[in-house]
Amino acid sequence: MASITPIGDKILIKRIEAEEVTKGGIVIPDSAKDKPAEGKVIAVGAGRRLPSGEVVDFQVKKNDRVLFSSYAGSEVKIDGNAHLVMSEDEILAVVE
Amino acid sequence: MASITPIGDKILIKRIEAEEVTKGGIVIPDSAKDKPAEGKVIAVGAGRRLPSGEVVDFQVKKNDRVLFSSYAGSEVKIDGNAHLVMSEDEILAVVE
Amino acid sequence: MASITPIGDKILIKRIEAEEVTKGGIVIPDSAKDKPAEGKVIAVGAGRRLPSGEVVDFQVKKNDRVLFSSYAGSEVKIDGNAHLVMSEDEILAVVE
Amino acid sequence: MASITPIGDKILIKRIEAEEVTKGGIVIPDSAKDKPAEGKVIAVGAGRRLPSGEVVDFQVKKNDRVLFSSYAGSEVKIDGNAHLVMSEDEILAVVE
Amino acid sequence: MASITPIGDKILIKRIEAEEVTKGGIVIPDSAKDKPAEGKVIAVGAGRRLPSGEVVDFQVKKNDRVLFSSYAGSEVKIDGNAHLVMSEDEILAVVE
Amino acid sequence: MASITPIGDKILIKRIEAEEVTKGGIVIPDSAKDKPAEGKVIAVGAGRRLPSGEVVDFQVKKNDRVLFSSYAGSEVKIDGNAHLVMSEDEILAVVE
Amino acid sequence: MASITPIGDKILIKRIEAEEVTKGGIVIPDSAKDKPAEGKVIAVGAGRRLPSGEVVDFQVKKNDRVLFSSYAGSEVKIDGNAHLVMSEDEILAVVE
Repeated sequence: MASITPIGDKILIKRIEAEEVTKGGIVIPDSAKDKPAEGKVIAVGAGRRLPSGEVVDFQVKKNDRVLFSSYAGSEVKIDGNAHLVMSEDEILAVVE
Repeated sequence: MASITPIGDKILIKRIEAEEVTKGGIVIPDSAKDKPAEGKVIAVGAGRRLPSGEVVDFQVKKNDRVLFSSYAGSEVKIDGNAHLVMSEDEILAVVE
Repeated sequence: MASITPIGDKILIKRIEAEEVTKGGIVIPDSAKDKPAEGKVIAVGAGRRLPSGEVVDFQVKKNDRVLFSSYAGSEVKIDGNAHLVMSEDEILAVVE
Repeated sequence: MASITPIGDKILIKRIEAEEVTKGGIVIPDSAKDKPAEGKVIAVGAGRRLPSGEVVDFQVKKNDRVLFSSYAGSEVKIDGNAHLVMSEDEILAVVE
Repeated sequence: MASITPIGDKILIKRIEAEEVTKGGIVIPDSAKDKPAEGKVIAVGAGRRLPSGEVVDFQVKKNDRVLFSSYAGSEVKIDGNAHLVMSEDEILAVVE
Repeated sequence: MASITPIGDKILIKRIEAEEVTKGGIVIPDSAKDKPAEGKVIAVGAGRRLPSGEVVDFQVKKNDRVLFSSYAGSEVKIDGNAHLVMSEDEILAVVE
Repeated sequence: MASITPIGDKILIKRIEAEEVTKGGIVIPDSAKDKPAEGKVIAVGAGRRLPSGEVVDFQVKKNDRVLFSSYAGSEVKIDGNAHLVMSEDEILAVVE
């Protein structure tokens, strides 16, 4: 498998398909609004650079299970699995 | 129940349904405009980072009852209850 | 009556209905443009935070009678009276 | 007459009607574009706050005759006369 | 003639009509795109204030012949001649 | 072959055509969303200038294989091959 | 020929027509997207002012051959030749 390293403040996420989410019984998005989706963090970039020049660490790390809007990120398939590249501020929460 | 930790400046809120709000007789939104909704703060992120790099504390804390616009946030269901993830500046006021 | 504390730079205003305004003969909005409305400041938040991190005081205080655009703020009803939550920069002027 | 004090960087202006402008023979807006309007500064706010927190003085003062876009500001009527509340950067020029 | 002093970063320009431009044979705008127009600087404001609070001098001065987009500025007529009030960054170049 | 040096924060990328991507079996974009494309970094500009004036180095370097949105950049053909000029924040990830 | 000095961060460019570009065999824009155009830098302004007040030098200089988007800049004709006034960040690359 090729290694994909996100740039800067970007994060590579492997999408967790709806069936898996339902099986775990944890997060079922409501139909009325934007449906958040779940995924696992595969890799993070070098960090987010503030306007001051300082680079701040990510608040998510490899293997974190995260919630994000279904509109977030750019999709890529790696070895047949759906992945997304998005910036950290598109991530809503970490599921523990 | 799974634990959901919001990212950065985001806040996890459990929605208080309209019936409950009406029962308490406290806040009934007017029909002419955007209807604010009520909820209880379940968890807060690490804080909001200013452009200078400083992280400032939230003005709401766990268990606060808050008002927010009905358009605010992204909805998730946890164990069958409607929750919302939103940033603090989408919260209008704390009801005490 | 429940106490409502606005968040950060937000201000809670009790709307003064048009009849009251007309009775006082002071401010009658013109029909051609956005009609400003009048209200009384009921409570203010903790203050507005500048990008530098400094928190600045409000220029309006409790009991001030204020003018604001009729499109400003989010409406809530408290004990049957129309109230609005808005940020200070949506307030046009103080009527003395 | 009630006293109206503009908030922060806002300015209260009494509109000078078109007839008065024409009589003075000074500024007749061109029909092809946005027509600037004229008015007299009645009151100014406390000043404009820079992102750094510093408050800067206004460049217009009470009684200045000013030009502004016909789309600028929010209209109020005080004692039957058309007034406008606008921020200083909506003012184009001072007529002396 | 009334004196008009532009506010802050604004500049008062007397338009040079197309015929005059053609006579001098210098700048004939192309038909395919936004046509720049020519004018003479009549008066400048106090200067442009940076976010840091510093006021910087203008790069154009009274009597400079300038090029600007035909969409730039707000038109006023002074003593029957077309004038424009615009900010310096709407000026493209100085013609010498 | 002419040498093309990107300006400032811009990067010159030689597009890797879809057939080549498929042959390597690495990244096949999903049909549902914005399809990321692949390319090789040919040349980078002088660096990105922060608002503070500091110039920061690029996170990609010559010969890096990168993923970017199919909408990113401006296309040029050099010696018959499709190239793109884009800024670094339009690059999603480096493929190693 | 009149001398035209661009203002601040603006650059005056003499367009190189398509035939000339094709003759040199260097850059033929692709038909699918925004076609970059080529030109020669004729004159540059005083430099770009950062929010901090510092003025930074241009990365292009007089006589540089540059690529830019076909939508960039405002067109002027000088002595019958198509010229453009644009800001440096509309320039994609220098062709050497």
